Amino acid sequence: MGLRVDAYPNETVLDAAIRGGVGLRSECGGTQVCGKCRVQVRDQRGLTPATPNERKLLNEKIQAGYRLACATRVLPDADPIMVVVPPEGVIRKRQFVGIGSEQRVGLKPAVSKFRVEVMWPGISDRMSDAERLLTMIRRVRGDAQLELDFNAVARLPEALRRCKAVTVVIWDEKRVISVEAGDTCESLYGLAIDVGTSRITLSLLDLNSGVRLAHESVENPQISYGEDILTRVTYSQAGGDNGKHLQHTIVAGINELTEKVCAEANVSPLSVCEAVIVGNTVMHHLALGLDTKYLARSPFTPVIRESVSVRGAELGLSVNPDAIAHFLPIVDAFVGGDAVGDILSSGLHRRGAPTLLLDIGTNTEVFLRDREGLACCSCASGPAFEGVHIENGIKAVEGALASIKIGVGGFEVEYSVLGGVEPVGLCGSAIIDVVAELFKRGLIDGFGRFSSKAETPRLTKIDGVKRFVLVDAGESGTGRDIMVSERDINEVMLAKAAIYTGCSILMRRRRVARGELSRILIAGGFGKNLNRMNVRLIGLIPDVPSSKISFIGNAAHAGAEAALRSRKVMHLADRVAREAEYIELAACEEFSEEFTAALMLPHRKLELFETVNKLGDMRPKL
Amino acid sequence: MGLRVDAYPNETVLDAAIRGGVGLRSECGGTQVCGKCRVQVRDQRGLTPATPNERKLLNEKIQAGYRLACATRVLPDADPIMVVVPPEGVIRKRQFVGIGSEQRVGLKPAVSKFRVEVMWPGISDRMSDAERLLTMIRRVRGDAQLELDFNAVARLPEALRRCKAVTVVIWDEKRVISVEAGDTCESLYGLAIDVGTSRITLSLLDLNSGVRLAHESVENPQISYGEDILTRVTYSQAGGDNGKHLQHTIVAGINELTEKVCAEANVSPLSVCEAVIVGNTVMHHLALGLDTKYLARSPFTPVIRESVSVRGAELGLSVNPDAIAHFLPIVDAFVGGDAVGDILSSGLHRRGAPTLLLDIGTNTEVFLRDREGLACCSCASGPAFEGVHIENGIKAVEGALASIKIGVGGFEVEYSVLGGVEPVGLCGSAIIDVVAELFKRGLIDGFGRFSSKAETPRLTKIDGVKRFVLVDAGESGTGRDIMVSERDINEVMLAKAAIYTGCSILMRRRRVARGELSRILIAGGFGKNLNRMNVRLIGLIPDVPSSKISFIGNAAHAGAEAALRSRKVMHLADRVAREAEYIELAACEEFSEEFTAALMLPHRKLELFETVNKLGDMRPKL
Repeated sequence: MGLRVDAYPNETVLDAAIRGGVGLRSECGGTQVCGKCRVQVRDQRGLTPATPNERKLLNEKIQAGYRLACATRVLPDADPIMVVVPPEGVIRKRQFVGIGSEQRVGLKPAVSKFRVEVMWPGISDRMSDAERLLTMIRRVRGDAQLELDFNAVARLPEALRRCKAVTVVIWDEKRVISVEAGDTCESLYGLAIDVGTSRITLSLLDLNSGVRLAHESVENPQISYGEDILTRVTYSQAGGDNGKHLQHTIVAGINELTEKVCAEANVSPLSVCEAVIVGNTVMHHLALGLDTKYLARSPFTPVIRESVSVRGAELGLSVNPDAIAHFLPIVDAFVGGDAVGDILSSGLHRRGAPTLLLDIGTNTEVFLRDREGLACCSCASGPAFEGVHIENGIKAVEGALASIKIGVGGFEVEYSVLGGVEPVGLCGSAIIDVVAELFKRGLIDGFGRFSSKAETPRLTKIDGVKRFVLVDAGESGTGRDIMVSERDINEVMLAKAAIYTGCSILMRRRRVARGELSRILIAGGFGKNLNRMNVRLIGLIPDVPSSKISFIGNAAHAGAEAALRSRKVMHLADRVAREAEYIELAACEEFSEEFTAALMLPHRKLELFETVNKLGDMRPKL
Repeated sequence: MGLRVDAYPNETVLDAAIRGGVGLRSECGGTQVCGKCRVQVRDQRGLTPATPNERKLLNEKIQAGYRLACATRVLPDADPIMVVVPPEGVIRKRQFVGIGSEQRVGLKPAVSKFRVEVMWPGISDRMSDAERLLTMIRRVRGDAQLELDFNAVARLPEALRRCKAVTVVIWDEKRVISVEAGDTCESLYGLAIDVGTSRITLSLLDLNSGVRLAHESVENPQISYGEDILTRVTYSQAGGDNGKHLQHTIVAGINELTEKVCAEANVSPLSVCEAVIVGNTVMHHLALGLDTKYLARSPFTPVIRESVSVRGAELGLSVNPDAIAHFLPIVDAFVGGDAVGDILSSGLHRRGAPTLLLDIGTNTEVFLRDREGLACCSCASGPAFEGVHIENGIKAVEGALASIKIGVGGFEVEYSVLGGVEPVGLCGSAIIDVVAELFKRGLIDGFGRFSSKAETPRLTKIDGVKRFVLVDAGESGTGRDIMVSERDINEVMLAKAAIYTGCSILMRRRRVARGELSRILIAGGFGKNLNRMNVRLIGLIPDVPSSKISFIGNAAHAGAEAALRSRKVMHLADRVAREAEYIELAACEEFSEEFTAALMLPHRKLELFETVNKLGDMRPKL
């Protein structure tokens, strides 16, 4: 990669690489468990010897000089060491998933500006700057209750004397948060931010027109401390300042994006007076510097659920220091502000007919809207659909297989790749396709086991585990076969069973029959690459006609935008979060029965899946 | 003094001395004007040559090696230089003026604590930590409106899980500002702080009993940037960070005192949850980091007059970070929170009969309470009574002459000295005594001029200015005569005329006759050393019987304590400040006539001063 970095004595190669700006993958947070941070070092003088964990995880690769970057330390006074990072070990550029559908909301943001003329002080007028401003505001608007933030007070002496008019920045019709010299009403901008576990997306909106001027996204820089969220919670607890450090990491990511969008749209960051932030509960807590310890252990209690507003400067955002950063509320430890954003942008709370909404991720949030209101739950679906725990799984980045078809005859594999490059792994949509296609072709049975009767050279057995070769070494970007193993299929079945169980229990509790569902909305990263037939085929969601399934993309971000555009929507978020009934699946007695039934392809009760039933008759009997 | 300090190349001796911890006097802020920072350097190799200003201010002393520390720079690569600081050049230990009378106020501080038991979270109770706490608070106290500060929210996860009970810290019955594990109700302390231009006083109170546990005071560390307030305002405007720097200087002074009182009383600074701060308007603005520019130029407009509450951590106080620092309101640019404190502690606002209150300083605040309410003004009395602009004047520090009597026969001088050491100069009370005694003995006339007929060796003439020797070189701590010059007397007369004019105009405007005055309260540094007869003799205050004159000491600090003890008094301060009528003397047309008449001893209209009239007959006709 051509990068050089000075390592401290006894520093791990992983830490040195991260400092040096190498986006080395690590799912376990450097605890020698996941094996994803492997690197190749031909000349290992200057490094500590391989640990037992490395021997176990790397097997015969040890001979080829492979090491785990998290286990390998640089000896003091070592000569320069050449470390090769294999292609699959690098965090890659991710495909941007468009921001979900824009809901039409009346444009009336929580932050507003207005111009007022303030008299100059005179010797016989004994009013302070603050009193002169408030007197004029009252005269113009009649807001007797408007309070003056201390930070706005501090800006008065200069602002009131530079020109005759000042612009007052008001938050939520309640507080004067800033005062600017002259008439700056025409410059009023806001940020909508979705802090995802793996990705931060940010858009810049002109709050006078409601128009989105620019949007950008970036890998969540915390990813270097563990791809999954629990690893980061563990890290945040491990050392005194780790929590603060993770907070700064998020803020740095947001600031990087802010700089980009502002430059793109030619907007001064100082004109940005509001940021609406959504994120799952852990990201919400980490961003606010709240302790995440009790989110990760039963009974999984968040510190606060209500929306929180803090000053931009307090959070460290590089926007107007008086700006307000407003975090949308969360529903529970596993249903965060991002899920609330899904609801706001999809309009789920307004729908009359029963509707399901799923936001698929490591935890999949499921909402059911019926005539009475909203119920929701969180399914521990695991990160399989994000490519984690899948041997050749990767996120939806450049080089990821996005869709897969397996032919009827010789089981030839057709595929599409994100970014049009040579494939290096499978992302979520392809993982679903593979299982569905293998099942459709009779290559696996209802339990996800490879048929012993199937005869194709693509089926091999390595280390005692059966695998199906999707892409030959020659065609792949890694120089190795891209395969799916029985273990991978098992991961997918666990994931889809968890999600289906969530849907099923919500519908039972609220007495909504499958036939009554008017629509199933699927939010999240897969977006347009998802195959409507295959999601039902593997039994991920209830079997409804394809026409009733909608992919709504990054609906969480769209929800943040809606709350940014409209104060009413922002307040609605609090009501939605407060009123949504959260059902803790772990506390449901029917859970294990439902889950076990859902562990088959597509489900033990085939009568629930007519589509597949019909198809079943066409499956080749191998 | 035995101190060594490394000077930067071309650094002034003053700057190096301040860095080295030498409390070198400087009234002009290092602008080569006041001449107080003179030092003696025998071997001047390594220093820049004397400037024209030095030649002018030091005269023949130049020959003896005297230099102005602010004008003298250390040349690069100079050898060690021995600098002698003359005794009068050192900022000395100041006599502590007792905190004014304690008003009896009901003990109910704005900050309060109470204990509440909070259920532990359970899997089927889906409340956040914040909700569980607020639910219990409502159950116990019924405070539906109590808001939770974000900083308190951040403390919840740990506090709620350490023990079953938590202690909630409440501010002003409105906000939960902190939460502590266990029952800490017994530890609740507060600080009362008076940030004076020259001195910071601080006391520690047990808010459960109302008892003052300790008090300390320290020279305001800003004094190194100029003894008078305008020099500091100028300094704060001069460079980008100067304002911030002066703010930190105040806070550092407060923290030093806090550490002392807490150690003395064996109280953890973390148990200090409130600080009530008073100060004149400039100190108030500097402490809060507000721009002071417009306080110093007409029309002298403060940024804010209302009381301001900020978090202790925000201000940088080393107490509980969630503590509230509450600044009492100010009345106007020249009538600050200290004056409001005077009123609170003296009970002036409650008095039925007409009463005058004076707080004598560089600006003397005068309040007149009559049946209708409060009127006030500020008199530009100048710093003469603080020893500034008086040749041998010093503050009320160790070695200061405190009282003086001049005998009838040979004009022998009797005196008392603060700290019982050899005298080095005159402080305010002695300055008043000298003028009164010289007048009484016929040594000066009504215009403050030395009588040409007086024959005494104590009367000399140096550099064309007449002087009266109070203490011979042999008796003094400086080895030089301590004298009072005609110029000094003139300064005193300007000062007393300004103060009397303030009293007189307030009484005119409110139609209060001298005979109606039930009492004159004098607050400020002189305290008990002031001579009731002499204040009237020189015409500083209206001529009322001695029995009607009370010295109330540091009433401002006592007011801060009253507001600390009682939330009601704290809120009363806002009402008092808002309702007091401020009369701008500069805008009064009768000012110059009144002032001119008051420029005589005791006054041009002798009928206003019967006491002196009677005495006048006894004055020796020289």
